[in-house]
Amino acid sequence: MTDQIKYQLDEQDIPRTWYNLAADLSTVEPLLHPGTGEPLPREALLGIMPAELAEQELSTEREIEIPEAVRQIYAQWRPSPLFRARRLERALDTPARIYYKYEGISPAGSHKPNTAIPQAFYNKQAGITKLATETGAGQWGSSLALAGALFDIEVQVYMVKVSYHQKPYRRLLMETYGARCVPSPSTETAAGRAILADDPDCPGSLGIATSEALEVAMNNPDINYAGGSVLNHVLLHQTVIGQEAIKQFAMADDYPDVVVGCTGGGSNFGGLTFPFLGQRIREGRGVRVIAAEPAACPTLTKGTFAYDFGDTAGLTPLLKMHTLGHSFVPPSFHAGGLRYHGMAPLVSAALREDLIEATAVEQSNCFAAGIQFARAEGIIPAPESTHAITVAINEALRCKEEGRSETILFGLSGHGHFDLSAYEQHLTGALRDEQYDESQLQAALAGLPGLVSA
Amino acid sequence: MTDQIKYQLDEQDIPRTWYNLAADLSTVEPLLHPGTGEPLPREALLGIMPAELAEQELSTEREIEIPEAVRQIYAQWRPSPLFRARRLERALDTPARIYYKYEGISPAGSHKPNTAIPQAFYNKQAGITKLATETGAGQWGSSLALAGALFDIEVQVYMVKVSYHQKPYRRLLMETYGARCVPSPSTETAAGRAILADDPDCPGSLGIATSEALEVAMNNPDINYAGGSVLNHVLLHQTVIGQEAIKQFAMADDYPDVVVGCTGGGSNFGGLTFPFLGQRIREGRGVRVIAAEPAACPTLTKGTFAYDFGDTAGLTPLLKMHTLGHSFVPPSFHAGGLRYHGMAPLVSAALREDLIEATAVEQSNCFAAGIQFARAEGIIPAPESTHAITVAINEALRCKEEGRSETILFGLSGHGHFDLSAYEQHLTGALRDEQYDESQLQAALAGLPGLVSA
Repeated sequence: MTDQIKYQLDEQDIPRTWYNLAADLSTVEPLLHPGTGEPLPREALLGIMPAELAEQELSTEREIEIPEAVRQIYAQWRPSPLFRARRLERALDTPARIYYKYEGISPAGSHKPNTAIPQAFYNKQAGITKLATETGAGQWGSSLALAGALFDIEVQVYMVKVSYHQKPYRRLLMETYGARCVPSPSTETAAGRAILADDPDCPGSLGIATSEALEVAMNNPDINYAGGSVLNHVLLHQTVIGQEAIKQFAMADDYPDVVVGCTGGGSNFGGLTFPFLGQRIREGRGVRVIAAEPAACPTLTKGTFAYDFGDTAGLTPLLKMHTLGHSFVPPSFHAGGLRYHGMAPLVSAALREDLIEATAVEQSNCFAAGIQFARAEGIIPAPESTHAITVAINEALRCKEEGRSETILFGLSGHGHFDLSAYEQHLTGALRDEQYDESQLQAALAGLPGLVSA
Repeated sequence: MTDQIKYQLDEQDIPRTWYNLAADLSTVEPLLHPGTGEPLPREALLGIMPAELAEQELSTEREIEIPEAVRQIYAQWRPSPLFRARRLERALDTPARIYYKYEGISPAGSHKPNTAIPQAFYNKQAGITKLATETGAGQWGSSLALAGALFDIEVQVYMVKVSYHQKPYRRLLMETYGARCVPSPSTETAAGRAILADDPDCPGSLGIATSEALEVAMNNPDINYAGGSVLNHVLLHQTVIGQEAIKQFAMADDYPDVVVGCTGGGSNFGGLTFPFLGQRIREGRGVRVIAAEPAACPTLTKGTFAYDFGDTAGLTPLLKMHTLGHSFVPPSFHAGGLRYHGMAPLVSAALREDLIEATAVEQSNCFAAGIQFARAEGIIPAPESTHAITVAINEALRCKEEGRSETILFGLSGHGHFDLSAYEQHLTGALRDEQYDESQLQAALAGLPGLVSA
């Protein structure tokens, strides 16, 4: 067929190993115990996750084998398609070739099942019957609910209260899969009760919901915690995305000059870009890698590179990362998956080592780009994904201005079927760009836990 | 990989022709002009559709070429996957092999783009800049909105008023693609105004919305009508589904003993099953084909085989079909795509010629089956699709009882992401089976337009 638009791999092309960027970075800063300030031993993680995941969290091995049972479930929707956005290229009248790797075809509609499935698998193997987690917009919660249904594990999701009420469809998706969904802050945990005592109307945050899920896992030997982003093993699992994309570019006889991913906690970005970064580091390939983050939660462009907690209550180990401070509460813009104060340590390290660039974009531009994309390519993107689309379009327009036919790849992390009310706000002119509170940011940065290294 | 679950064809396996069952049926009854009772000439259709579609509507050629431009757009999501439901088989403990052909990976989430794309293509070729249509639950309207965006055609959708208000997400999907969505009955048409004069609070119906869209197309030379089901050319376009499935069964070295599809207007059912019926007729393959319809709108099991109108106001030609009468208004159960008084003439003829069986199922059983399927296979099915799932599960349980390892194929016509409130009603016990009004049915049957043949 002329004008090929889809590059589809076979089932046997599903990667057999996950790629660990830690093997190729100059420096990997350890997790620290917040009390002692000492590097965290593997054993300290075993209260909340099975041994295999704890090992993966701390590993610096380059390749880690994907269990066959996980590959079999991946096969339901993987390898995911790589699309050439020919209609978008024509709409932009750009000489650039634009490609996107689409993760919205997973049963949960985003990239999140790539890690939910192996996490459920390893927990099931370890005899765990119950998992606790947090979710914001619900993409992660619904993916873990899916994995729980497939592995017969009970799933309990602490969902940021404002999202619980504003996004009933994502909650219903979790419940249809059989998960229990609890609005957070809740009275079920000490962390939740403390916050409610202070502010009974607290709308919740991802950091608070994480504290609740962690507390439940720490206090119950039969319950483990499952994280949807930030952690090393989560980004590791997502690298199936970029590995497949590399094979698909070989099919297309092309290779990206620019790779763009959106960044919240960093799991979609890391999954897409790390395999390309590995080729850049080891083989000297000249690929630019750009993180697209929300201007209202600008972790990479305005945050500090420091040790900080991953949650609000300070229950996690200390992570060396770009952070706005664990007490920072982002304004309530629509890309709920990007509303997080920190950034995955591996992504943060890549920025620190100048392997990637970061840029912040406003949500009004993102929704406009999302609609332009939807009308050209037919897929309604998740609000998170529109951040990557915006930066990819900007790069394509730069190519047009410079008369360069570069190859641009971006990650389309999920579809926006559950986010159409945000599109309505954009279409009716009711959508506003949200601004974070500068004094709150400064206070949050001042409240970093004593180990700041600039 | 052991235990293969997905059969994925290549882009070049997208069919090059559509399959026309009319070529293989014993009898094809013509469309009739309602005034004269004479067979409708092709020219009579040209006021509302381009010549190519009018030809396809009346054609008895077995194979009709798919334009390359249409195949190129199909390639974004086609060939659609055929899945082996191994986890569902295990949950049912059945010796049957269960397969499903999944159309929910299209950008609009259902099989409807298979015909929306060629209809938009032929209209664009004919210089048409605007299409009018009706939609109930919104699957068809959003698919035509998608096609309009891709071909730069304005789309105006008359959406059943009760759905317009109850299903805001499907309306928003259409608007995000750039379509204009009008609650029906509206004041924009004589048909709508007449109904509103009689009943200002009329919640609308698919028949009324069809009358509105047809009236707009008939009165405006630059506007054509596009139908989402029932019509011969619509079912023709959908036969890519079954043709691909046949190739996928060859990959699996298997062949169905039973094929099940849900039936509303008949487009998903026809698309999936007609290519199998063609093999049964021409090659004597012993496949059973079952239509799964809603008990609250039992067109095939309780309707009359007669000439009737496709819409409420009587603007369409007369179609020979199984019908509950064009004035019949089905109760408001959740599978909005199955709430139609008639059945595609080709499906009706297949039942008349004993090529297919029909069975009616209650929605409470369907949602229970849908949840069992979702928790086993990970995909939340559209309420329409749960009718096929229910019958497939019943067949698999029959196989268990009889100790037979038959091969069962069903059509999973779409995902249920926009129907989760219906799942919530089921999960909370608030869902009731709806009953049609027997006296209203008898009145509707008595009101058939004078050409009834029993």
